[in-house]
Amino acid sequence: MLRLLLTLSILLSMTQAREYLVSWNDGKNKQNIVEFVNKTTDPKGSYYIPIKDRIAVFDNDGTLWSEQPMYFQLSFILDRVKEMAEDHPEWQKKPLFKAAIDGDMKKVLSFGEHGLVELATATHSGMSVPDFQEEVRRWIKDAKHPRFNRPYSDLIYQPMMELITYLEANDFKVYIVSGGGIDFMRAFIPALYELPAEQIIGSSVAVEYKDGKIIKLPKINFIDDKETKPVAINYHIGKQPVAAFGNSDGDLAMMQYTEANRAETLQLYVHHTDAKREWAYDRDSHVGKFDKGLDYARDHRWTVVDMKKDWKVIYPFELNPPKNK
Amino acid sequence: MLRLLLTLSILLSMTQAREYLVSWNDGKNKQNIVEFVNKTTDPKGSYYIPIKDRIAVFDNDGTLWSEQPMYFQLSFILDRVKEMAEDHPEWQKKPLFKAAIDGDMKKVLSFGEHGLVELATATHSGMSVPDFQEEVRRWIKDAKHPRFNRPYSDLIYQPMMELITYLEANDFKVYIVSGGGIDFMRAFIPALYELPAEQIIGSSVAVEYKDGKIIKLPKINFIDDKETKPVAINYHIGKQPVAAFGNSDGDLAMMQYTEANRAETLQLYVHHTDAKREWAYDRDSHVGKFDKGLDYARDHRWTVVDMKKDWKVIYPFELNPPKNK
Repeated sequence: MLRLLLTLSILLSMTQAREYLVSWNDGKNKQNIVEFVNKTTDPKGSYYIPIKDRIAVFDNDGTLWSEQPMYFQLSFILDRVKEMAEDHPEWQKKPLFKAAIDGDMKKVLSFGEHGLVELATATHSGMSVPDFQEEVRRWIKDAKHPRFNRPYSDLIYQPMMELITYLEANDFKVYIVSGGGIDFMRAFIPALYELPAEQIIGSSVAVEYKDGKIIKLPKINFIDDKETKPVAINYHIGKQPVAAFGNSDGDLAMMQYTEANRAETLQLYVHHTDAKREWAYDRDSHVGKFDKGLDYARDHRWTVVDMKKDWKVIYPFELNPPKNK
Repeated sequence: MLRLLLTLSILLSMTQAREYLVSWNDGKNKQNIVEFVNKTTDPKGSYYIPIKDRIAVFDNDGTLWSEQPMYFQLSFILDRVKEMAEDHPEWQKKPLFKAAIDGDMKKVLSFGEHGLVELATATHSGMSVPDFQEEVRRWIKDAKHPRFNRPYSDLIYQPMMELITYLEANDFKVYIVSGGGIDFMRAFIPALYELPAEQIIGSSVAVEYKDGKIIKLPKINFIDDKETKPVAINYHIGKQPVAAFGNSDGDLAMMQYTEANRAETLQLYVHHTDAKREWAYDRDSHVGKFDKGLDYARDHRWTVVDMKKDWKVIYPFELNPPKNK
C-alpha cells in the first residue's frame, strides 16, 4: 500500500501522469529499463515474453533498501541478543555473546562469519515462526537507524519501489531473492513493498513441525548467496528469470543465470555512488562488496545505475508528502 | 487449458450452467465444500478470509490422479533405468539395478525405500533440470498405464480438476504439496492442471549451479511427506493454508497444520472406494496407506469423499467429449 500510495502521490504531481519511473532521471539507464519492458511485452515483436515467464528477481540489502553501516538484520540480531540476555545468564560467560551484549561491534566481527551465524541462530530459534515475526515487526517499528534516526523501514529506495510497480503493471512477477532471513523478511516486506510472502526467498534456519506449529531450530538450513541464489530460484520458482537486479558480487551468479535465459533479458546493478544522500562504496567494502560484479557488468554492457546521477531521490521521506490530509 | 476446456464442455451440457462441481453428486460432502467457499468469501460474514490468505494445498498422488498399482513416478524411474542401462554396463552387476532392468518388481521392492531412492537419484541426476524435464515430458506422452492402456496423464480425477477451478474462481491460490519429485511434476503439471511451476512443491534431489545451468546431483535434498509437508509449506509459501486435500496418512500432518489455522478451514480426504472404476484401498495398502488419517478425519468430522458414491465420473475420458469439432 505504501509503495502504491507514494507512487500515486508523485504521479498526481507530475505532468506525465502515466509515467511510473518518476524518481529516475532521464538517461541511458532509465531508457534501458523502459526499452526492455516495451520490447518484451509487445505481442507483435520478436522479443515478446509470455506473461507466465516474466519472472523478475531482486536482491534486497543494498538493492531495495540500504545496508550500511551494517545489514539491518544484523542490527536486529544484536538488539535481540541484548533483549534476550536477561533470560540467558550463560551468555555473559561466552566472549562472543558478551561482546554483542556490550555492543562491542569490533569484537563481534572478530569472530568472523561463524560468529554472526551463531548469534543469528541463537536469536532466531526456539520459537514458532509467527512468534518470531511478531518480534521482527515490533523491532522494525521501534528501532532507529543510527545515521538517520528513523525506522529502518524508511530507508527503502523510492526509485526501486517505482521500478517494482512498473514491472508489475507490465505483468512481471517480482520476487525477492536475498541473503537475508526468509522469516525475517516475510515479517514486514509484504506490507512495506506490497509483495506476498510466497514471493520472498532468503536464507533460513531449519524448522520442525510440531502440534500445528512451525518451530525454528538453532541450525542453518540454507544460505542464499552467490551460487546458491540460482539454486533457490530453481527450487522456489522453477523458472529461469528474465530480469535480475542486484548491487554486489553476491548477486552475480543470479544475474548470470538470468543472462543465460534464451529470452531477452535485463540485468541491472545498483552502484552505490552517493556518499551524501546514501553511501558510496564498491570494491573494498566489507558490506555489499561490488568488485567482480562491476567488471563483469561493464564487460557485458549490463545496466549499472549510478545512484547519484540516476536517482532524483533516494528515500521516500525526501519527497516530503503533505502533512495535512 | 485441458482442465478449463473439460469443465467448460460439461458446463455447456448442463442445465445449471453456473455450477462448477458438475461431476460431484449432491450430498453432504459436496455441500461441505460449497458452504466453506461461500462462508469464507462473503465479505460481510464473520468467516471472511482476505484473498491473500486463501491458500489451498493439494496432495497429488491418489488425490489428483491415480497412484496404483504403483506411484506413476516409479514407473517413470523403472522405464528410465531400462533406457539408461545401455550407457551403464556396471548396472548389470548391481542386483537392485539388474532387477529393475529385468522388470522384477518384487525383487526391486525387496530393497525397501532405500532401493527406490537409489534408483530415483541415479535416474534423476547428472543432467540439467530442463534436460531432465524434456525426458519426463517425452515419457508422459508415450508411456501407457498397464490397466487402462492410456497415457498416465489421462488418469487425473475430473471432479478434483473441477474443484481446483472452483477454488481459483473464488480467488483461492492452489498449491500442489506432494511427495513426488518437484522437477518431475513441474515438467507436465503446469500444462495438465493449469498451475504454474511456482505453485508446485515436492521432494527434491540436491542441485548445483554451474555456467548458467542448474544441474541435478545424485543426492536427496528433501523428502516432502508427513511432518515435512508443513515444513515445505512454510518454506515455499510462508502462510498457513485454510484448505487441505489429501488421501493418505502422508497428508495428515499437512491437514492438521491447516486445521490449526485460526481462520475457518476445510480438510478433505479422498477415500478410494471404487474398485470398478478406479481402485479400493485404505488401511492395508502399501501405496497410499490411509489408516491413522481415516480415524482422525472421522473423529474431527472432516470431509471424507467416497469416490464411488460422490463422483459421477472418475477420469476425464469417461465424459466422451464429442469426436467431431
